[in-house]
Amino acid sequence: MRGLFITLEGGDGAGKSTQIRNIEKYFAAKGIKVTHTREPGGPPISEKLREILLDTGNTEMDAVTEMLIYAAARAQNVREIVLPAMERGEVVICDRFVDSSIAYQAFGRELGSMVAEVNRHATGGLSPDLTIWLDIDPEKGKARASGDKGPDRLDLESTAFHSRVRRGYASIAESEPERFKRIDASGTIEEIQGLITDCLDELCRSKGI
Amino acid sequence: MRGLFITLEGGDGAGKSTQIRNIEKYFAAKGIKVTHTREPGGPPISEKLREILLDTGNTEMDAVTEMLIYAAARAQNVREIVLPAMERGEVVICDRFVDSSIAYQAFGRELGSMVAEVNRHATGGLSPDLTIWLDIDPEKGKARASGDKGPDRLDLESTAFHSRVRRGYASIAESEPERFKRIDASGTIEEIQGLITDCLDELCRSKGI
Repeated sequence: MRGLFITLEGGDGAGKSTQIRNIEKYFAAKGIKVTHTREPGGPPISEKLREILLDTGNTEMDAVTEMLIYAAARAQNVREIVLPAMERGEVVICDRFVDSSIAYQAFGRELGSMVAEVNRHATGGLSPDLTIWLDIDPEKGKARASGDKGPDRLDLESTAFHSRVRRGYASIAESEPERFKRIDASGTIEEIQGLITDCLDELCRSKGI
Repeated sequence: MRGLFITLEGGDGAGKSTQIRNIEKYFAAKGIKVTHTREPGGPPISEKLREILLDTGNTEMDAVTEMLIYAAARAQNVREIVLPAMERGEVVICDRFVDSSIAYQAFGRELGSMVAEVNRHATGGLSPDLTIWLDIDPEKGKARASGDKGPDRLDLESTAFHSRVRRGYASIAESEPERFKRIDASGTIEEIQGLITDCLDELCRSKGI
């Protein structure tokens, strides 16, 4: 069996890490091995690119440069981690994927259609079987996440930027309702987990797992 | 006056560094300021990307990842160094540019048309006013360059790879004869310099400089 590819989207404070652990448990209970990775990052080359992306000292970074570095990190993650694990029949869970670039670069930075075009080459056309978007009001998310760690380069962006990002995600949800599921992340961890489990049950049914 | 953008192409041992200094002197004698940069590299962000590209330890790097990192470094170089200097009316000399990606990635790594497509976004469509290709047989170039420095990740590629690269350059020379000038780099430094000066004289005449 070719494995499954599941991605999670959503800003800080939406509870992604907790829910990724729950999704792992869900598949472990079915006896299916889970590999997880994250973007930007994953394999060593992509983690080196991540350092450059998140470094608050890189204030000169152009939006196109940034978009291409994200795409490069993704190309390596797909080929070194995601595809090999799927070939082995595993479930791959990735914290952020192409949808992040569409939301942050195409909408947030207003780069438009070049982002999808470049990312088609970066991924070789790979699309997730399911994407969970943990949607939370940026201000609420920020309040929840505060204290976790210092702000990175993207955290320092304006409220207008983060509103465009959210609009980007909403637009994907509208155009790909089968794959891309919006989940209200303002509820409790248990409520969110219940909604995600419903999505996973539906996915497994459709794949005969 | 909008400045000029001149790029040099050619492998190790072709004498690029020497000729770049001569081109600088050529324009200095006309009282025109010259800015030089290199690829991959130039501004700090691009130099960090260069380190990742040339690190012989990064043996896992996929060809698409590599192509995207070169494009990212280029996007930053264009926007942070090349365009601002041209706006100031300077001559910008760049050691390698998009043609390197076409030769090494599209032909050498056989990635095809995606390389030109991604690079159109990276450069925002900027094309050099003149490109000098110092063409030398890869084996002869290697012999000349030996002793300069240790081999980097690309030096370690096969002879077949370097033959495809040279074929890539030859194909650009054929399709863009006005911009892209092949110069036989097997001659002496003075012979090569003479041929380049002819190209520069022609460029300056056409631009009324």
